[in-house]
Amino acid sequence: MDISPAAIAAASQLGPVPGTGGPRSERTRRAILGAARAMFAARGYEGTTIRAVAAQAGVDGSMVMRYFRSKAGLFTAAVTMDLQVLDLGSVPASRRGELLVRHFISRWEDPARGDELSALMRTAVTSETVAEQLQAVLSQLITEPIAELGDEQAAERGTFIAAQLLGLALCRYILRLEPLASLPSDDVVAAIAPSVQRYLTRAAASPSARRR
Amino acid sequence: MDISPAAIAAASQLGPVPGTGGPRSERTRRAILGAARAMFAARGYEGTTIRAVAAQAGVDGSMVMRYFRSKAGLFTAAVTMDLQVLDLGSVPASRRGELLVRHFISRWEDPARGDELSALMRTAVTSETVAEQLQAVLSQLITEPIAELGDEQAAERGTFIAAQLLGLALCRYILRLEPLASLPSDDVVAAIAPSVQRYLTRAAASPSARRR
Repeated sequence: MDISPAAIAAASQLGPVPGTGGPRSERTRRAILGAARAMFAARGYEGTTIRAVAAQAGVDGSMVMRYFRSKAGLFTAAVTMDLQVLDLGSVPASRRGELLVRHFISRWEDPARGDELSALMRTAVTSETVAEQLQAVLSQLITEPIAELGDEQAAERGTFIAAQLLGLALCRYILRLEPLASLPSDDVVAAIAPSVQRYLTRAAASPSARRR
Repeated sequence: MDISPAAIAAASQLGPVPGTGGPRSERTRRAILGAARAMFAARGYEGTTIRAVAAQAGVDGSMVMRYFRSKAGLFTAAVTMDLQVLDLGSVPASRRGELLVRHFISRWEDPARGDELSALMRTAVTSETVAEQLQAVLSQLITEPIAELGDEQAAERGTFIAAQLLGLALCRYILRLEPLASLPSDDVVAAIAPSVQRYLTRAAASPSARRR
């Protein structure tokens, strides 16, 4: 099994920027997100203030709040601004699990992004508001691509797949459990993809999920 | 598929208390761990000091250090002091994945323990020393029972199973992703057990793991 980086790129598209309301203010939003990204990376979540981000972006703090509602909203938008949304329909049904795992791993192993995703996860486990934001991001990245296939059990499948993929990230990139942390990524994809494929295709666990 | 609580209890045994060196000082250790548990629960990891735990247990701080080496060591020992180690050989090979999942979920859903395990995980993602301690605990709880079956790939299997189970805990108990957070535990076991069973039985990913 192999899905090339080119195939992953072809199946990806830039997701909407969270907090976007219209095209006119796009440049301002990008400036705020750029300033936020640099500041969260340098000072961490607790050490960053809306006021300082606004000053850095050359806007008023109230404008940051209008676009992103809260520090948690700004944080998640900044960390996920370039995450791409998969088109699962672009590969055969039997390879969608592999595509999801490979896409997820490639984002975490991208030298420009891995630290930000680690920061998002570290912050999410200690902040309820950031956890809510992370739920929205996971829904966008995992559940919505499944729902777009016309799958009525997308919500339940999405959370089981999130559990498998976030657990992988936690153990491989944050806790760095060995030998998992040192395995080549192809070996990890080969190990994890069949589980994700099964969550994509199994009958729903609960009657409520079947009705959804 | 069903494994009764009685069967799980029969397959479990009390694990060794981390930091134990001999039977004579067992009572002192238990007193320190009891004080630590209450204090970590009330004040969190950062707000707890070795000195305060020692005072509460009626011993000197140097004795706490001698037994547990560091605050991280004390924390992990306190949180995991009653965790039970499974005897996987007590059930048929085809049901070991289910037993692992059911045992793990029953610990998290035990009203007396769930909060402590959440605290351990929250602390582990932000503290490298606690993360190292968590690795030791995971090895004891997951990898060692597999190794005791004579499985030479136990280390690799253990980390893949840890990734699946910690991801489940993260999404169901900490991030509380829906619908996963509200599913009956039997439905969750039915969904996750086949993945754990496959990690228990698949060929190793890497040549190095095969040699281990």
